[in-house]
Amino acid sequence: MSELLPGETLEDLERDGLKIIQKEKGFRFGVDAVLLSDFARVKKKDLVMDFCTGTGILPILLYGKSHARQITGIELQDEFAEMAMRSVQLNHIEDRVKILKGDVRDETLLKSLPRFDVVTVNPPYKKENSGIINEKDALTIARHEVTLNLEDVIRGARTVLRDQGRFYMIHRPERLADILTLMRKYRIEPKRMRMVYPNTKKAPTMVLVEGVRDGGAFLKVEAPLYVYNEDGTYSDEIRRIYGDDRR
Amino acid sequence: MSELLPGETLEDLERDGLKIIQKEKGFRFGVDAVLLSDFARVKKKDLVMDFCTGTGILPILLYGKSHARQITGIELQDEFAEMAMRSVQLNHIEDRVKILKGDVRDETLLKSLPRFDVVTVNPPYKKENSGIINEKDALTIARHEVTLNLEDVIRGARTVLRDQGRFYMIHRPERLADILTLMRKYRIEPKRMRMVYPNTKKAPTMVLVEGVRDGGAFLKVEAPLYVYNEDGTYSDEIRRIYGDDRR
Repeated sequence: MSELLPGETLEDLERDGLKIIQKEKGFRFGVDAVLLSDFARVKKKDLVMDFCTGTGILPILLYGKSHARQITGIELQDEFAEMAMRSVQLNHIEDRVKILKGDVRDETLLKSLPRFDVVTVNPPYKKENSGIINEKDALTIARHEVTLNLEDVIRGARTVLRDQGRFYMIHRPERLADILTLMRKYRIEPKRMRMVYPNTKKAPTMVLVEGVRDGGAFLKVEAPLYVYNEDGTYSDEIRRIYGDDRR
Repeated sequence: MSELLPGETLEDLERDGLKIIQKEKGFRFGVDAVLLSDFARVKKKDLVMDFCTGTGILPILLYGKSHARQITGIELQDEFAEMAMRSVQLNHIEDRVKILKGDVRDETLLKSLPRFDVVTVNPPYKKENSGIINEKDALTIARHEVTLNLEDVIRGARTVLRDQGRFYMIHRPERLADILTLMRKYRIEPKRMRMVYPNTKKAPTMVLVEGVRDGGAFLKVEAPLYVYNEDGTYSDEIRRIYGDDRR
């Protein structure tokens, strides 16, 4: 069950010996998942939910970081859900990390779950009908808002979060007005934000946001995060986040 | 009429010989006004309105930058409006820069004005009832939301802007959720944003925002703006904005 299938690779996460199964060609985790796992504040006692979990990268990284009580990843696509389950088994963390096959838009499903202390999500970034898309393609579904949009994500987070529970998302800066407006609409108050810039001179490519369900209004925008130094090497902070051994 | 009163000083703006009258003690223009004048895109044919104009710093800086057809600054407080008028006369730009004594919350007044191509505003930053405030004090009124709040500013901008007219504001990053939510509410779509950081390592202290009345949704977040270099000197960009002669 936990062996690799043809076309799959095993990547060492360089964190407590944790590994993840990915497709050689297809959706592979990127710096966004790693940055989100670093940005999210997760305590040992927390119940954590990861929406759109894909290969299960966030639950596994968060487990490595926090050893949280229970981390559940929810994934719509069979192919990814099954692969994520095999990664969990491979790491022998089935007692702490669960993969649930399901739809974030399914309010009945969400309401049947316990309330969570933390929700994380690295959602499809691209607006529905932007660019050339193929609705049937797994990679397209993971990247475009074909099967769920930003509002679905935030509505779902409101449903499963406990009062004062924390919401963490990484997204594109061009969606910032949508993000903050929808968080306000579903009363997940934006509390902390960080822009991710390729280097000190470029426009940001990602934004990290923390919200608190029914939190009071005050947004702390943090110091910028740069991915690269001027000479093209990874910044000190990225190296710290990756565990100091990447160049 | 254009002579200085006791307690006033004359500052050279180092831009086309333009000058401004300020109080020695009291509200003096800062880097925020200069950054906003740089961020705003103003064309020669534009009709421009500056809300909460205070000493008239924005209209005078924008005139120096753009030689726009007509720039009107609106100011509630007699003391500032009168001082701003004297600055305009001193610079002999009365034909192009007008100071209007009035209230941005006065919808009847706003509707009686022509429609503007551009609205700029460097509004009171602090939320009403935050910190120790004295409602009668001119400096307090200029800095706190005593007499008008963020929603008044954005509603007023909607009223005076022409279709597709541009809105430019500088504000505090902690108000970003309020800013973007209110802009959406009054259908001034956020189109461009820039974070202002003291240096490459610190949290931002200001944010610049451009909106377009009834514009389509797409926000371009720009490269960061740093005020200082690591050694405490002004950054190259700040020196460019100030006209290259500040250290």
